[in-house]
Amino acid sequence: MTKFMDVHHGMTGLTGDQLREAHEADLAIQDQEGVVFEHTWADPESGTVYCLSEAPDADAVQRIHERAGHRADEVHCVTLAL
Amino acid sequence: MTKFMDVHHGMTGLTGDQLREAHEADLAIQDQEGVVFEHTWADPESGTVYCLSEAPDADAVQRIHERAGHRADEVHCVTLAL
Repeated sequence: MTKFMDVHHGMTGLTGDQLREAHEADLAIQDQEGVVFEHTWADPESGTVYCLSEAPDADAVQRIHERAGHRADEVHCVTLAL
Repeated sequence: MTKFMDVHHGMTGLTGDQLREAHEADLAIQDQEGVVFEHTWADPESGTVYCLSEAPDADAVQRIHERAGHRADEVHCVTLAL
C-alpha cells in the first residue's frame, strides 16, 4: 500500500455537509478497490480539496472518486512523508 | 489556530533526506510565528510537496517557509477537515 494525495479544484463555496457527503460516498465503496481514505481537507474560498489515502495505485484512487461522482484533478503518489 | 495546507511545486527529484532537512528547518523556527507544522508529504516525481500546519494565519506559515529558505507556492486555509 502506498500513500496518495489527490486534489480537487473548482469546489468554491463547498460546505461542511457537502464535504462530509462526498467523503462518505468514497468510504462506502473504497473497499472495492482496496483504497483507504484517511483524511480530507478543504479550502472553500479557493475551492480546493485534498484527500489523503492509502491505495494499491493512483488509478484505484481515481476509480473510487469517479464512481462516487467527483473525479480528482490530480492524484499524486506521495512516496515521502514526515 | 487554523489549519493550513501549503504546496510547493518544482521539487522534482527531492530525496527523503532533503525533505527531512527542509522540514527540520521549519520546525526549528516555527515558534517565532506560532506555527505548528504537523505533517509533510512529497511526490518527488511531479515535484510536489504538501505541508499541513496549524497557524494564526497564512502569512505566518509563509514567513516561516521563507526564513527556512523554501517559499510556498500556495497556502490554503483549510477550514473544513474530516
